[in-house]
Amino acid sequence: MAQALRHDAMRAGNLAVVLGALDRDGPLTRAALAEATGLTKTTVSKLVADLIDAGMAVESGAVRDGERGRPGVAVHLSGHRVAALGLEINVDYLAGCVVDLSRTARLFRTQAVDNRAASPEDVIAGLRDLAISMLADAAGHGLSVAGGIVALPGPVDRSTGTVHSAPNLGWRDVPVADALALPLPVLVDNEANLAALGELWFGSGAALGDFLHVSGEIGIGAGLVVDGALFRGAHGYAGELGHVVVSPDGPACRCGGTGCLERYAGQDALLPAGEDLAGLVARLRAGDPSAVAACERAGSALGIALTTAVNLLDPDTIVLGGIFAPLFPWVSGPAEATMHRRLGQIRARVPALVVSQVGADAAPLGGAGQVIQRIIADPGAHLLAPQP
Amino acid sequence: MAQALRHDAMRAGNLAVVLGALDRDGPLTRAALAEATGLTKTTVSKLVADLIDAGMAVESGAVRDGERGRPGVAVHLSGHRVAALGLEINVDYLAGCVVDLSRTARLFRTQAVDNRAASPEDVIAGLRDLAISMLADAAGHGLSVAGGIVALPGPVDRSTGTVHSAPNLGWRDVPVADALALPLPVLVDNEANLAALGELWFGSGAALGDFLHVSGEIGIGAGLVVDGALFRGAHGYAGELGHVVVSPDGPACRCGGTGCLERYAGQDALLPAGEDLAGLVARLRAGDPSAVAACERAGSALGIALTTAVNLLDPDTIVLGGIFAPLFPWVSGPAEATMHRRLGQIRARVPALVVSQVGADAAPLGGAGQVIQRIIADPGAHLLAPQP
Repeated sequence: MAQALRHDAMRAGNLAVVLGALDRDGPLTRAALAEATGLTKTTVSKLVADLIDAGMAVESGAVRDGERGRPGVAVHLSGHRVAALGLEINVDYLAGCVVDLSRTARLFRTQAVDNRAASPEDVIAGLRDLAISMLADAAGHGLSVAGGIVALPGPVDRSTGTVHSAPNLGWRDVPVADALALPLPVLVDNEANLAALGELWFGSGAALGDFLHVSGEIGIGAGLVVDGALFRGAHGYAGELGHVVVSPDGPACRCGGTGCLERYAGQDALLPAGEDLAGLVARLRAGDPSAVAACERAGSALGIALTTAVNLLDPDTIVLGGIFAPLFPWVSGPAEATMHRRLGQIRARVPALVVSQVGADAAPLGGAGQVIQRIIADPGAHLLAPQP
Repeated sequence: MAQALRHDAMRAGNLAVVLGALDRDGPLTRAALAEATGLTKTTVSKLVADLIDAGMAVESGAVRDGERGRPGVAVHLSGHRVAALGLEINVDYLAGCVVDLSRTARLFRTQAVDNRAASPEDVIAGLRDLAISMLADAAGHGLSVAGGIVALPGPVDRSTGTVHSAPNLGWRDVPVADALALPLPVLVDNEANLAALGELWFGSGAALGDFLHVSGEIGIGAGLVVDGALFRGAHGYAGELGHVVVSPDGPACRCGGTGCLERYAGQDALLPAGEDLAGLVARLRAGDPSAVAACERAGSALGIALTTAVNLLDPDTIVLGGIFAPLFPWVSGPAEATMHRRLGQIRARVPALVVSQVGADAAPLGGAGQVIQRIIADPGAHLLAPQP
């Protein structure tokens, strides 16, 4: 029994080594895999067969095997079966996406809805409907969804699947993962954290060095990526940029404070009542002075909060995402001017502001991407689990 | 030749393994060291002999060897020969300390001087005199100082030993390490970073979890310790708390910005012209209303900056050091009240403010401690280097 357990642990470790090599360097022949991993060819062949059976790898046909020139059959990571679900509850929309094991986004769904007007139960029921219909669509594409993550606009407790506080929704301690009751393992994470990971894996993240990704929504969050991983802080609550103090005597914020960045640069501060983002962008394109002035006010406040963030966090680059992506041409200039005025003398270099390459889907993509990372890091947990 | 190099590298690695075990778990017998490290008893005996010759280890006499009850001679890390020098240039003082290999502080020196009135050359010459006299004292105690670090009040380039900018001194791009020209390897680091490490190794740091250490001087810096290591940011400039924006339209700061924390809570903001810290503390003890009001103003501003720091960095605990240590009873209350008002609703727990256990010597202690860490991590570099 102990020996069997040890054998399973060893096999799980070896599966991860082989799938990791395919993910990083594939396609690879079995011989090249054996060389890269230090495993015997017999072991590699057996592990590859298991990965192919599980739909995680596939043969790509004959290739020349590097320098030796012998033809062989290469194997690559396959996206045709295993997939992950990324979901998001935000203040004025629900969203979801399905990403396959090769990190290709296969399905997107967004639903505009005022979640402030609904109870947590109704919002979660709405997300459940969206998720169930996406799982059905995924099955129609031959995809088996291994797990999901829900992005939430506030600090979460990842171990219990609970959002601790989402002031813009008026939620406190809502056990989202349990309440969702989906037929697959579901975790929760902070929306701004997942959006930063979305930029890292599906946008220009890998080229940016250490970056701070700013998610502008009705709330404003940020995620700091250091050496390719999220900086989460001691309790996972780091990056709450929206409640950085811009002006201590400023307007009251839903968090209980005053003068927080959200009150100057969040979606509600930028959009006149009744106008949507597309309407604002249209007015900006037409050069409407009040729209331009609103973006200048928001951009200057964002510049103050980002000055503070640079002083404390010292990133290489700052990525503006969420609503700040379509508003980038009008918001980034005032923000940069403020940062240069305040940081230019004490820093050799003021971090550049760049626009998100992912935009509105960043958080669900980051969530699904995180599930894919976990599967690739431990395919055995998925593959060796008792099949239902 | 290649084999000799390989042998040296192996020996250096094994020396580090043995010295690391003594540092963590000593005193240990040679037999226990062999068991703990997986090295043969012959190899351990030879390495221990080398460490004893180098003055890094010493026999502590016969002890019972754990469970087996056989008496043996234990070895422990020795502080009697190898030591490190910590130095600090700040706005109104120079400081130095010598710490031995067992992390016992052996010598302290502080010199009050207005470094704003002097040229960088003169300040560095003054620090050189202080260092040379401390090296002579150390030699008188039988200590051989292996290296030093200079703490500087601004962002530094550690690779070139240069302080990039120290606005409170009016310095830009001063090559401090080279200019100091001491007869030992000298590095530079940011004062606030080293003070955080000083608290970690010589204060209550290890018990605090992830903590933010605030260094109040004429400037205000902070160092974030995560998992026992400094969070430095992409360019080593993280933790510039003094230039966090408290109120964007506030008074002009030497950094080029306005309304920075330093202008509300730095030493110059707290002390009326001509008064020193001891005078202020005396007035506070006597209940002088203007002194109390000054600390309330400073504490509230500190509370705003720390609210922002908690939102972005999410530490477990915040340690107030430098001038905030003697002023803790008068500054911490207003700061905590501000933080609770602004963070209480969105955080399950607002980080506690605690007073530094190291105080004014934190930065030089952290610097010397960092040199000691390096020697213990690689004693071979010190021990195998050609002796002069």
